[in-house]
Amino acid sequence: MSEIIDNSDTQTRLLSINRYLNAGAFVRVRKLLHDIPAGDVALLLESSVTKTRDDLWQMLDADFHSDVLEELSEDVRNGIIGKMMPSSVVDALEDMDTDDLAETLSTLPEDVLNSILKSMDTQDRLRAEKALSYGEETAGFIMNTDTITLRHEVSVDVVIRYLRLKSELPENTDTLYVVNRQDLLIGTVSLARLLTSSPDVSVEEIMDDEPISIKVDMQESEVASMFERYDWLSAPVVNNEGILQGRITIDDVVDIIREDAEHSMMSMAGLDDEEDTFAPVGQSTKRRSVWLGVNLITALLAAAVSDMFEATLSQLAVLAILNTIVPSMGGVAGNQTLTLVIRGMALGHVSTTNSIWLVRKELAIGFFNGLIWAALIASVIAIWKQDYMLGAVIAFAMMMNMIAAGLAGATLPIIMKRMKIDPALAGSVILTTITDVVGIFAFLGTATLFLI
Amino acid sequence: MSEIIDNSDTQTRLLSINRYLNAGAFVRVRKLLHDIPAGDVALLLESSVTKTRDDLWQMLDADFHSDVLEELSEDVRNGIIGKMMPSSVVDALEDMDTDDLAETLSTLPEDVLNSILKSMDTQDRLRAEKALSYGEETAGFIMNTDTITLRHEVSVDVVIRYLRLKSELPENTDTLYVVNRQDLLIGTVSLARLLTSSPDVSVEEIMDDEPISIKVDMQESEVASMFERYDWLSAPVVNNEGILQGRITIDDVVDIIREDAEHSMMSMAGLDDEEDTFAPVGQSTKRRSVWLGVNLITALLAAAVSDMFEATLSQLAVLAILNTIVPSMGGVAGNQTLTLVIRGMALGHVSTTNSIWLVRKELAIGFFNGLIWAALIASVIAIWKQDYMLGAVIAFAMMMNMIAAGLAGATLPIIMKRMKIDPALAGSVILTTITDVVGIFAFLGTATLFLI
Repeated sequence: MSEIIDNSDTQTRLLSINRYLNAGAFVRVRKLLHDIPAGDVALLLESSVTKTRDDLWQMLDADFHSDVLEELSEDVRNGIIGKMMPSSVVDALEDMDTDDLAETLSTLPEDVLNSILKSMDTQDRLRAEKALSYGEETAGFIMNTDTITLRHEVSVDVVIRYLRLKSELPENTDTLYVVNRQDLLIGTVSLARLLTSSPDVSVEEIMDDEPISIKVDMQESEVASMFERYDWLSAPVVNNEGILQGRITIDDVVDIIREDAEHSMMSMAGLDDEEDTFAPVGQSTKRRSVWLGVNLITALLAAAVSDMFEATLSQLAVLAILNTIVPSMGGVAGNQTLTLVIRGMALGHVSTTNSIWLVRKELAIGFFNGLIWAALIASVIAIWKQDYMLGAVIAFAMMMNMIAAGLAGATLPIIMKRMKIDPALAGSVILTTITDVVGIFAFLGTATLFLI
Repeated sequence: MSEIIDNSDTQTRLLSINRYLNAGAFVRVRKLLHDIPAGDVALLLESSVTKTRDDLWQMLDADFHSDVLEELSEDVRNGIIGKMMPSSVVDALEDMDTDDLAETLSTLPEDVLNSILKSMDTQDRLRAEKALSYGEETAGFIMNTDTITLRHEVSVDVVIRYLRLKSELPENTDTLYVVNRQDLLIGTVSLARLLTSSPDVSVEEIMDDEPISIKVDMQESEVASMFERYDWLSAPVVNNEGILQGRITIDDVVDIIREDAEHSMMSMAGLDDEEDTFAPVGQSTKRRSVWLGVNLITALLAAAVSDMFEATLSQLAVLAILNTIVPSMGGVAGNQTLTLVIRGMALGHVSTTNSIWLVRKELAIGFFNGLIWAALIASVIAIWKQDYMLGAVIAFAMMMNMIAAGLAGATLPIIMKRMKIDPALAGSVILTTITDVVGIFAFLGTATLFLI
């Protein structure tokens, strides 16, 4: 009978493992861990606090180590490997595909990596070094080398007989590759095509002889956007000469797509993408402190700007009360523009051809936003504080800051990308500094001129 | 020969289309649009301003309309459909798979949808209504109905002969489904398995007889996380009785994964996920104003809190200068926690079993953050303003606000999710309001008690 899965099934399973664990029913936990897929074990480990995670790992069959490690995020995986014996790590790594091996090894701390490489036999070490030889985040790094290749002159019947000699095809094989004597990729044949073709035609007649292939040094995020754009399940990887090197499958690309999309959100809050939700308090405090430190400096900078107007502030306390409104609105408006442009760049929509148009557009939105919110805040203040001049001053400051916000929000990520700085990481801090400084200057400066 | 693609190729192609378009070389544009894949045409349209987008659409072969519409994001697609003749829309929709048809129709404005349904012939309208009958964002909504089914008793040889009668298999077919006479799903056979099996064994012998299937009413984000967790390429969809209804393929799931991951980032900045980067100024200004309005209210709320301390502020202008530091640090720290918990919930890591642990952890981080930044700000202020008591006051306020930030950042999303409110959308506004109010109260309140 088929097993119908829904959300509650997975949650229930995780809940019951937790219950057994707390009750000390380790035999049951061990059995459950044995019965559920590696992806679920990984989810369970990632949803557990460090102590429980270590206990669960102890109870997991060593045969499953490799499958589960593949599915874990970097932080969690490194935490577990750091506590394993090098020899057990080596055993787990032996079972991994090339791409997972490269991914796992590349994120390990230097000393752990060295002790693991030392424990490997020569053959495994060579394989590991080959996997690590491609630059991180390139196609070569995420590809698998287990391709099935054909010659163009053989018939479909011969191909099918050849496949029947194998007990199974490499995981997620949907396409076979046609190469010449020099291993140059000359075509591709999907399994579906093979099955719908008459047995006596040759591979040459049914192959796609203009296959799109990926170069080993292409960036992984570019690979991911091609998979998305062309709805691929897999794609061949070739070197600069067009020689077949391996293949990339969609399951690895899915992880990259999620990571790329998450990266912007996490970076904008000053967090590492791979940040483990259940990391110990000390580690998390330390990691987040850099970002808070940067923010403290910008907050002090804003205070220093206000400090220049101390005489004004001491004469009119109402300015102190309203001083946060204009910077806050500028920060929010600028952040909307910044987020939109960062996403547009990630999706490949923003390029040199349209960036000037985009800056002009955001400037125009800043102008109209300025008009709307200046009018509104002027009315609110005029009524609340019964002071029309004060309303006019805050309206002018709002107008200035909204324009600055639109301009900064659109140009910052474009400039930063050209300077090879990640706009998701540093963009929002710089933006907020700009909108704070412009907002305070415009408000307190105008107030000093007209109200004192 | 194989075509090796890298990033620059796609960019160059887009650049030259833009150049031809500006030069009025429409014949060349038309030819290029004809030669590139639908995914690239969609990227080009999404990267263009509204005017160019309309021109390009005019030059696109009607045969490609359906393929390109499928690849576009909601906002852009609706803009284009809104300008097409209903009869042309109907022609494009006829060529779509069920899942793309449902997706396209469901996002259209009511009046456009009605005029299109009216232009359809009965058969197409029935298909459209069937596609729309499943709840939006469910498995039924995103599934395709073009499955290939087998009987368990036939041999591999017979299956292969049967497939050869078809000129091609439905797009992205990697698995065939085995059903009984009642269409109950009883097994699955991958194409790879079929090709590696001996011709005279029966389907029953090689099928996976415990296939995991998805129920039609499962939420699409849950479907996506299962595809990620189990590295699937496709999965069968069944109704409550286990009767096969269709299949979901990874290419549709990839879009959901990207949208889910982007949703949090866009929502946290008060933007719609599908927001078109190149929308006209008026439309963008209007859409963003709701969020700015909400923020203005919270900024006024913070100002009202400061207003309660007007007497204090008029006596000590230095308080006005430093009044923004504590709220700002609280906002940043709280936002880090909020982002982390929201992502943890999206990945399924945060659940009832560990949420109390998580709140305690973030509270502890808030406490240690408080200690660190209170000590630092006290030293800075004591040196800058030569006032130890002032340093002590701001340190106390920082301590209070960091704890409030950790507590609010961790509990808000958990509470909001239980109340079925999207924490990514409303979380950051409420959080900032809390850290502003607590920060100002703690700072100005303590200052009033000890410094005046």
